[in-house]
Amino acid sequence: MIYASILGYGTVGAGVYQVLTMNADAIARRAGDEIRVKYVLDLREFPGDPVMEVLTHNYQDILDDPEVSIVVETMGGLRPAYQFTKSALLAGKSVCTSNKELVAEHGVELREIAREKNINYLFEASCGGGIPIIHALDNALTADEIESVTGIVNGTTNYILTQMAESGTAFETALREAQAKGFAELHPEADIEGHDAQRKLAILSTMAYHKHISYRNIYTEGISAVETEDIAYARAMGLKIKLLACSKRTEEGIWAMVAPMLVGSDNMLYHVDGVLNAICVHGNALGDGMFYGSGAGRMPTASAVAGDVVTAARHLGRTILSDWSSEETELLSTDDVPHAFFVRFAGTKAEAAEVFGDVPTVVLPDMPGEIGVMTEVMTEAAFRVIASGTRKILKCIRRA
Amino acid sequence: MIYASILGYGTVGAGVYQVLTMNADAIARRAGDEIRVKYVLDLREFPGDPVMEVLTHNYQDILDDPEVSIVVETMGGLRPAYQFTKSALLAGKSVCTSNKELVAEHGVELREIAREKNINYLFEASCGGGIPIIHALDNALTADEIESVTGIVNGTTNYILTQMAESGTAFETALREAQAKGFAELHPEADIEGHDAQRKLAILSTMAYHKHISYRNIYTEGISAVETEDIAYARAMGLKIKLLACSKRTEEGIWAMVAPMLVGSDNMLYHVDGVLNAICVHGNALGDGMFYGSGAGRMPTASAVAGDVVTAARHLGRTILSDWSSEETELLSTDDVPHAFFVRFAGTKAEAAEVFGDVPTVVLPDMPGEIGVMTEVMTEAAFRVIASGTRKILKCIRRA
Repeated sequence: MIYASILGYGTVGAGVYQVLTMNADAIARRAGDEIRVKYVLDLREFPGDPVMEVLTHNYQDILDDPEVSIVVETMGGLRPAYQFTKSALLAGKSVCTSNKELVAEHGVELREIAREKNINYLFEASCGGGIPIIHALDNALTADEIESVTGIVNGTTNYILTQMAESGTAFETALREAQAKGFAELHPEADIEGHDAQRKLAILSTMAYHKHISYRNIYTEGISAVETEDIAYARAMGLKIKLLACSKRTEEGIWAMVAPMLVGSDNMLYHVDGVLNAICVHGNALGDGMFYGSGAGRMPTASAVAGDVVTAARHLGRTILSDWSSEETELLSTDDVPHAFFVRFAGTKAEAAEVFGDVPTVVLPDMPGEIGVMTEVMTEAAFRVIASGTRKILKCIRRA
Repeated sequence: MIYASILGYGTVGAGVYQVLTMNADAIARRAGDEIRVKYVLDLREFPGDPVMEVLTHNYQDILDDPEVSIVVETMGGLRPAYQFTKSALLAGKSVCTSNKELVAEHGVELREIAREKNINYLFEASCGGGIPIIHALDNALTADEIESVTGIVNGTTNYILTQMAESGTAFETALREAQAKGFAELHPEADIEGHDAQRKLAILSTMAYHKHISYRNIYTEGISAVETEDIAYARAMGLKIKLLACSKRTEEGIWAMVAPMLVGSDNMLYHVDGVLNAICVHGNALGDGMFYGSGAGRMPTASAVAGDVVTAARHLGRTILSDWSSEETELLSTDDVPHAFFVRFAGTKAEAAEVFGDVPTVVLPDMPGEIGVMTEVMTEAAFRVIASGTRKILKCIRRA
C-alpha cells in the first residue's frame, strides 16, 4: 500500500481524489501497488462528502506521518504552497503539483531538493492541463536537442480569440461570454495579459533546453489590444490570430516571447480552437511534433496530476529527474528575433511602399483610410527603426 | 560508461548511431552516464564509414560481452530479430527496437521476459515514428482508463490520399509518385492494404487497454479501392478520406478496425496531411488528446529509438514496464460497431430513400447515374442487412 495525501480540496484537488478513486484498480496495476489517499488537507468542512473521513485541517498530520510517501499539492498560489512543498520534499515525500505559479517561481529549487533527496517533484499539470508534454520532454524526447517550443497554452485567450474570429464578437463581449461560461476568471488579467502563458512558457522552455529560464525575463504581450478589425484582416488573409508562447534555441542563446501572432492554415496551431491547447516542439532528430488536448478543466488537470502520482509511486526512493544547471540562464534580447509583421497602415499603397518596400497589401472595403501590409521578415529592432520613421502605423501583429 | 550495441546498420540503425553520436553530451546528461556504442552488427562492410571501428559480423560478440547492457534492434523482420532479441533479454540486456512486425508478433512474450529479468523491452519507434505515443500510454496517461484510440499511423497511405485529394490524381498515379519520392516501397502491399496500420493498431491498443491484442484479429481494409470519384464526393461534402486505425473499449469488450473513413474538419485528424501521422486517445479523465508528428523517416524514427536507449540507461536493472495479462484478448466482432455509411448509389434520390430512409444526398454534376447518400448511424450488421436488399450500392465508406 502506498499512501498519498492531497493539499487543497478545490476543483483540481477534488478531481485528483476522484480519479484516484474511480480508476483505483487500473492505477494499482500500473503503480505496482494500491495507492490510498490517507489525508486531504483543507481548512473547510465538506459535510456529506466521503472526503470527510480523511479530511484534516492540520498540515503537520501529513508531514509527520512517515507512511505518507506522496503529497499532491493542488492549493495554487505561492503561500503556503511553497513552504508545504519544500517541507514535504525535505521530509522525503515526493510531490506532484498542478501549481504553475509555484513551479515557475521555485520549481528549479524544489526539483533540486527532490534530486538530492532521491525523490521526485513532478508538475505535468502545470502546463497544458492533461497534455503529457512535460513527461515527453523529461522522459521521452531525451535523445533530441530541442530547438524550439511554440504553443497555445492558455485556453481562456484561445476561447476569446476563437469567438472573435467565428462570431465577429468584440474582445470585451467575448471576454464576458467566456466569464459567463466559466472559461475566464472574474479577474482575468493573468490570462488575457499573457502572464499565465508566460509562466507556462518558462516551465516548458526550462524542460526543453534543460536550462533554468525565469518567466520574468520573457517578453509578453496579451490579447486585450486585439480588435475586431485585426481579426477581419486576418480572415481576409486566410490567417488566424493566436496567442503564441514561443521560444527558440539558437547558436547565440535562447529567446522567448508571448504575443498574439498571425498563423496560417499550414500550421497545425491554426486548427486549435476554443479552450483547447497544443504545444509544438522541434527537435534536431525528431523534427516537428505536436501535443494537443484540454489545457485546463477539473478532470484533464486531475488526470495529469494523478498520472504523476503513479509515476511517483513507481519510482519511490529514486529520482527520475533530469539534471539541469540551476543557475538562471539569461535570455537573448528579442531585438534580433525575426518575424514578418502585419501592419495596419493609415495611408495608401504607394505611401506604404515608401516605408516597407514592395510588399503584399490587403484592402478591406469597410475600413476606409487604412490598408493592411505584410512586411518582409525582419528583426524586431529593424522593424522598430522603420516604424519610428512613420506616424501611419495604427497597429502591428507578428506573423508566426 | 554504459555500453550499447546496434543490430542492423540500415536506415534506422545508422540513424540511431548518428543521433547517439551527434547528441552525445545531452544524452549523457539525461541518461546520467555516457552511452557508447560498442558494437554494430551487420553482415555488410562500410568502407570509409567510422562505424567500421565497431562493426562486427558476429552477434555472439555482443551477446557474450557482459559490458553491453543495451541492445538496439533495427534489423526489421522476424528472423533473426526474434531470436536475437530473446537471447539478449535472457542475457539481461535491455532491448530497444523499431521493429513493429516483431513487436506485433512477439512483443507480449518479449516484454514478459524483460519484466522477469528486471530489464526493459522498449518499442517507441514501432508506432508513429518519432511521436512519443507509446511512452505516453505506458508512463504518462497512467491514471486514465483509455477508452479509444484513433490514428493515422501510416505515412505512405496518408501521402497517397493527400495527393489524390489535392491534385485529383488517381490512386495508381499517386502510388507511383510516392514510390518515386521514397514514401512508398517497391512492394507497397503492407502499407496500402493496411497491414502496417493493423500491426501498429494492435500495439497501440495493447498499450492503451493493457490487454494483449493480436493484429490477426483486427478487421482491416486498405486504400487500394479508393477511387478519384470517392475523393470528389468527400470534397463536395467538406470531408477527407483518411486511413484510420481505430479501437474502442466498450462495456462488452474491445473492437478494432483499420479502414478508409470520411473525416470532417472538426476532427483534428482531418488536418493531418502528407506523410505525417497523428494518434488521438480518449481517456475517462483526460478527455481527448492528440499526438502528432513524423511517423517515419530515418531521423524521427532514430529519435524515438535513441530516446528509448536513454530510458533503458536510466533504468538499468529495473523494469518500468506495466503489467498486463499476456493472455490474448478476444476482440468483439465488428458487427456491432456503429458508423454512418457514405454510399454511392446507382439510382435516384427517391430510390435511395426507399432503401435508407430520408437521409442527406449529394449529386455531383459529372457523375451521372449515381448519387451519394449518407446513412444514419447504424451497426455494420444492420448496414449489411440493408445493403443485401439492393443491388444499387456501388461503394460504401464509413464516416468517422
